[in-house]
Amino acid sequence: MTRGRSGGKDSVMTDTPESPAGYRTLDEAGIRAFLASRPALAARLGGTPGTWRIREVSDGNLNNVFLVDGAQVDGTGGGVCFKQSLPHVRVDPNWKMPLDRTGFEAAYLHAVRPHVGDLTPDILHFDPDLYVLVVESLDRHVVLRHGLMRGGDWPDAARAVGTFVARATFPTTTLALPFEDVSRLLEPFSRNHTLTRITVDLVLTDPYRVHPRNHWLSPALDGIAARIRTDPGVRRSIGRMQARFLTCRQALLHGDLHTGSVMVSGTDTRIIDGEFATPGPIGFDCGLFVGNLLLHLFAMGNAAGRDRALRDIGRFWTAFRDEFVDLWRVATLRGGTGDAYAASLFRDDATGLLQAQDDMMREVEADTIAFAAMEVIRRIVGYAHVPDFDTIPDIATRAGRQGAALSLACDLLADPKSAPSIAALIDLAHARACDRA
Amino acid sequence: MTRGRSGGKDSVMTDTPESPAGYRTLDEAGIRAFLASRPALAARLGGTPGTWRIREVSDGNLNNVFLVDGAQVDGTGGGVCFKQSLPHVRVDPNWKMPLDRTGFEAAYLHAVRPHVGDLTPDILHFDPDLYVLVVESLDRHVVLRHGLMRGGDWPDAARAVGTFVARATFPTTTLALPFEDVSRLLEPFSRNHTLTRITVDLVLTDPYRVHPRNHWLSPALDGIAARIRTDPGVRRSIGRMQARFLTCRQALLHGDLHTGSVMVSGTDTRIIDGEFATPGPIGFDCGLFVGNLLLHLFAMGNAAGRDRALRDIGRFWTAFRDEFVDLWRVATLRGGTGDAYAASLFRDDATGLLQAQDDMMREVEADTIAFAAMEVIRRIVGYAHVPDFDTIPDIATRAGRQGAALSLACDLLADPKSAPSIAALIDLAHARACDRA
Ligand SMILES: Nc1ncnc2c1ncn2[C@@H]1O[C@H](COP(=O)(O)OP(=O)(O)OP(=O)(O)O)[C@@H](O)[C@H]1O
Ligand SMILES: Nc1ncnc2c1ncn2[C@@H]1O[C@H](COP(=O)(O)OP(=O)(O)OP(=O)(O)O)[C@@H](O)[C@H]1O
Ligand SMILES: [Mg+2]
Ligand SMILES: [Mg+2]
Repeated sequence: MTRGRSGGKDSVMTDTPESPAGYRTLDEAGIRAFLASRPALAARLGGTPGTWRIREVSDGNLNNVFLVDGAQVDGTGGGVCFKQSLPHVRVDPNWKMPLDRTGFEAAYLHAVRPHVGDLTPDILHFDPDLYVLVVESLDRHVVLRHGLMRGGDWPDAARAVGTFVARATFPTTTLALPFEDVSRLLEPFSRNHTLTRITVDLVLTDPYRVHPRNHWLSPALDGIAARIRTDPGVRRSIGRMQARFLTCRQALLHGDLHTGSVMVSGTDTRIIDGEFATPGPIGFDCGLFVGNLLLHLFAMGNAAGRDRALRDIGRFWTAFRDEFVDLWRVATLRGGTGDAYAASLFRDDATGLLQAQDDMMREVEADTIAFAAMEVIRRIVGYAHVPDFDTIPDIATRAGRQGAALSLACDLLADPKSAPSIAALIDLAHARACDRA
Repeated sequence: MTRGRSGGKDSVMTDTPESPAGYRTLDEAGIRAFLASRPALAARLGGTPGTWRIREVSDGNLNNVFLVDGAQVDGTGGGVCFKQSLPHVRVDPNWKMPLDRTGFEAAYLHAVRPHVGDLTPDILHFDPDLYVLVVESLDRHVVLRHGLMRGGDWPDAARAVGTFVARATFPTTTLALPFEDVSRLLEPFSRNHTLTRITVDLVLTDPYRVHPRNHWLSPALDGIAARIRTDPGVRRSIGRMQARFLTCRQALLHGDLHTGSVMVSGTDTRIIDGEFATPGPIGFDCGLFVGNLLLHLFAMGNAAGRDRALRDIGRFWTAFRDEFVDLWRVATLRGGTGDAYAASLFRDDATGLLQAQDDMMREVEADTIAFAAMEVIRRIVGYAHVPDFDTIPDIATRAGRQGAALSLACDLLADPKSAPSIAALIDLAHARACDRA
């Protein structure tokens, strides 16, 4: 999540669990003792625990996050990132929440790390009693959203995220595996009810109804917010996409792949924060990332920044698509054991395979565009906004840019034919963002 | 399953389980003792166990099935149907199989019975050690397939099956329930791997590859069997439908809804044999039933029989559609808690709801037609054929009718636009069946 507001969240609060007996929230001394008592972690940090430097970096809503540096001097990469679930939302202790989210994040890392290599941090430790997840510290990296907001450019980052989505999803599909294996692999993630409920409420539902969690720049955006709730074409698409998110069990998703879940440094890109992992349609992961690039695009005051955002949407999609179809092609040629688009159909039929891949990729592309539009909407009129627009000091200008983003998103949902492909989306977003710059 | 052939089934045999300690296959004496020791069952049967009449009625491939009559004279409905899983396929002791299938059938009955009322037999007992399921005996009913083959007519049966599919699926969708409830409800059925593997292999895969399990009237059907394996349009649709069956988690399905899973008597219709229950696309249940009506249609030598089969396809679909959208409408008006096509979108928008229902029903309709075509194909060239064509003594005539059915099925898959609706399918099937009658 990114910055929300307190209040009106009753229906998000699906459970008010008691913390299990062994659980307590660790403070700095507790973290130090925790790390010192795990030999592998203590050895990685080196030196004596008293010399380790601990600093809090939590900037999300949900968990405590600390970076710990040991004996290694900065830049050698021996530090650890310590993340602990709290029995409530970090920014609102009254909003109770089960602790299991770091467990889902750990399980997600275990599931995808063998396929994505260094596109995530290395997982070092998980403690199921304290709900503590320890991963490699990315202390030379910055959060992509923050970097972009400061005008930075990471020409490879969007491509790396596209490659990540392909490599993280393909091996969890019935294209790659017999359905029995997929069923076993996805089953635990189907139980990620707490965080999926947040997605269902905040992303798929709230912006399309009157709800106290919603807020926006009023009165400037009142009109477009009303259109979002009442336009027949928007409603029609939203109903469909709700069903799609909840019934299309295509792959294991990251589930929260916005630009705040990507960390970059020079040419290295890492995807963090997989606590929302859930089975779902691949276009949801793609759509969240593309949606956040669109948000950034509309927030940008300069043409160079906007061009980079558009370029990154293209790079992301191309990298995703190329990698996904290539993994699929190789699996098919090897006579893979996937039960969907079975190798027995396409092994000796390169043309048929290309056609099948095109069919499926068009479906993912349409999902991507619709979910991207929904992400744009919920990040401007829903509960948890993005900070990208905060760089615009003048409120009227800010509302104008947000309005332009919302209007594009509405049009995409009201008439999916207005951008039948990512290429068309890029053209349309370019025209709309320049209009209102 | 319906009549198959032994042999070549290695990949179906997913497990060669040891039977659990408490398990043994009960013979007639064992069945009598089993029923006598369960007071509710003994009381239902009445009189003394020694007077109960037991007769075997197993005519499927998988399980032992016996009907037991007690003190009640015939027609009063006090008998029981005793079904026990064997550690192997009934018709082939070398084909080992886990015992849990009656457990899935019992769970399915428990899940749907509250919604479908008397459209299934009443469930009386399940024994998880012996894998024995006891349900109400339908001793005045006949299996619909057999009845149709004898030229009988049950004008309400197809409508009842349509109503059944609507009532059994709707309450298990995210249209009706919060996704958390759907997830908990579907999770156990996702583990029905053994019987779902049979569907994946025999229905979705084998007919489209060279496989020793396949067989057909050769050489007459060699040409069309080859087209089924090589036509680019057929391959393209099959790949898509494989993915659809395996990734579209729309509802809890019966999973084996052919005309052999329906029993009829006068105006009463019951759906039996839910052991293949699995989450999946609703059009799969619809498609299997429609496919078996198509098979019956092409097997019929007389115009009256063909007209009845076409009429029943129409009645089935209309009843299903009307009931499904009505359940949905009522849920929406009541402000239901389903997360897909949420009531918050459509509660005050009757036109929008109709549009949304039309969108979803068109999707189910397209799935129905494609799965119906696949059912026709696998029942003529796959492992487990239907007996409907056995009533045709002349082999050339039989091959001609089967060839016409296969050719229609191929065309439906190769070009989905050839029948974009059930109404169009009925017209097309009528023309094709008359051509070759
Ligand atoms: N491995 C890491 N190395 C360095 N910094 C990290 C690492 N993981 C997280 N961070 C920092 O901590 C912040 C919070 O991490 P993260 O997003 O995982 O927490 P969260 O509580 O799940 O937040 P959210 O509300 O976004 O879900 C990140 O924005 C980043 O600045
Ligand atoms: N409740 C019932 N009352 C009367 N007869 C029944 C009942 N249930 C099943 N039968 C009879 O027993 C036969 C076999 O039942 P069923 O189809 O459930 O067994 P199966 O082993 O699962 O067969 P299949 O190979 O089709 O899966 C039916 O075709 C029907 O004739
Ligand atoms: Mg997070
Ligand atoms: Mg059966």
